[in-house]
Amino acid sequence: MIGVLGGMGPVATVDFLNKMLAATPARTDQEHVPFVTYSDPAVPDRSTAIRDGRAPSPLPRMVNGVRALEKAGADLIAIPCNTAHYWYDQLTEATSIPVLDMVALASKTIAADLADGAEVGILATRGTLAARLYQKKLEQLGLHPLEPAPDRLCAIDKVVSAVKANQAKSAASTLKTIAAELRERGAHAIALGCTELPVCWHFVAAEISDFGIPIIDPTTILAEECVRLELAIRRRRYSAAQDMTAV
Amino acid sequence: MIGVLGGMGPVATVDFLNKMLAATPARTDQEHVPFVTYSDPAVPDRSTAIRDGRAPSPLPRMVNGVRALEKAGADLIAIPCNTAHYWYDQLTEATSIPVLDMVALASKTIAADLADGAEVGILATRGTLAARLYQKKLEQLGLHPLEPAPDRLCAIDKVVSAVKANQAKSAASTLKTIAAELRERGAHAIALGCTELPVCWHFVAAEISDFGIPIIDPTTILAEECVRLELAIRRRRYSAAQDMTAV
Repeated sequence: MIGVLGGMGPVATVDFLNKMLAATPARTDQEHVPFVTYSDPAVPDRSTAIRDGRAPSPLPRMVNGVRALEKAGADLIAIPCNTAHYWYDQLTEATSIPVLDMVALASKTIAADLADGAEVGILATRGTLAARLYQKKLEQLGLHPLEPAPDRLCAIDKVVSAVKANQAKSAASTLKTIAAELRERGAHAIALGCTELPVCWHFVAAEISDFGIPIIDPTTILAEECVRLELAIRRRRYSAAQDMTAV
Repeated sequence: MIGVLGGMGPVATVDFLNKMLAATPARTDQEHVPFVTYSDPAVPDRSTAIRDGRAPSPLPRMVNGVRALEKAGADLIAIPCNTAHYWYDQLTEATSIPVLDMVALASKTIAADLADGAEVGILATRGTLAARLYQKKLEQLGLHPLEPAPDRLCAIDKVVSAVKANQAKSAASTLKTIAAELRERGAHAIALGCTELPVCWHFVAAEISDFGIPIIDPTTILAEECVRLELAIRRRRYSAAQDMTAV
């Protein structure tokens, strides 16, 4: 059973669940992937905590959520919040269940389709950018991270806030402009490194036929990995049951 | 924290979560409603169990889900599956947490807008119709339930199956035709008494400007009630905290 540590934010959590359904080749209820989602929107803001040491840490409430997922029967944990991955090591230490690393998974997917040394634009919260979550992974994979101009960080935060307030559509033109700036500066691909951004990009994509460079959605990558793992486990159990019958 | 007993089916569960977000007047993560969702798609088919006494009962797995929600910290349980309400009494007995009755909530909403004796079309699974879940509630409220013709039940089940398989759009014209038949037979409103049906009706509504009679979506009614209750609890806590400060 997939455990989803959600609420960061709730709109991004449900977007992740929608994408998990879309990634499942199910014809009946019983073929779908079981999941338990703990959506605690009162977790203190992750980006603020990274940038301001005096701000409340989100870690205690995130650990509480991981424990709740364990108790409810989760075998695996997915966290559809990039900024929360700043505490990835502490979260994996707090539980015996494996925790998927969305930032690592997305970075690997990006690297698989690009030549060595390619430039990758990163759109993310100030916290994710300041902690260099994507920059470090991409550099390890031989890619060049490209950050938005410092005077655009405020605009990105406004897009994120709009999604959290169910106003994703209203922020689409801002997001498109900021992404286009990274493309003009030479980005060969852009990572939407905050799970609110793909919710907004959906409205950008509805208006343009081709943006010219690939836009990477880590939420979809995480959702597809969850479904892939679950179906692999199911196949293994089915083979084991067949073996038992043969014996 | 709202506990959602999901997986029946998973697409309807996530539709419920989307509707809970849409019903929340939140500007930040922290203003959203906390929830925990247990989505076990392996619960045996509810409609089949009602109609065939030898088929496996969904009750044990549903009780297991309710227990998991309790352990994870739920204070209230919502079940976005109408047919599951056949076991409503057993589920409320299995837990000390209040369980919302979607069928009762939806029936009350329907009655509030209709004159005494009005005809209400019911679109639902064979199980929900055979158990008279909506018919009983509507009759208690002075309304006349109108069931689909017996030769249309198979078509309704096909619409439900299409939604479970992520093929909601492909079933929209069938659903529209069956709903139109109830309207022609004199229905003053139609209840979409299976949580898969509003997912499909979304595509019907996108194509027509006005169906002529109200279409009632119990998923939205349940979602709005969850948000209303949660916000009422929050206001009460806030007032209590203010009182403490005043003391």
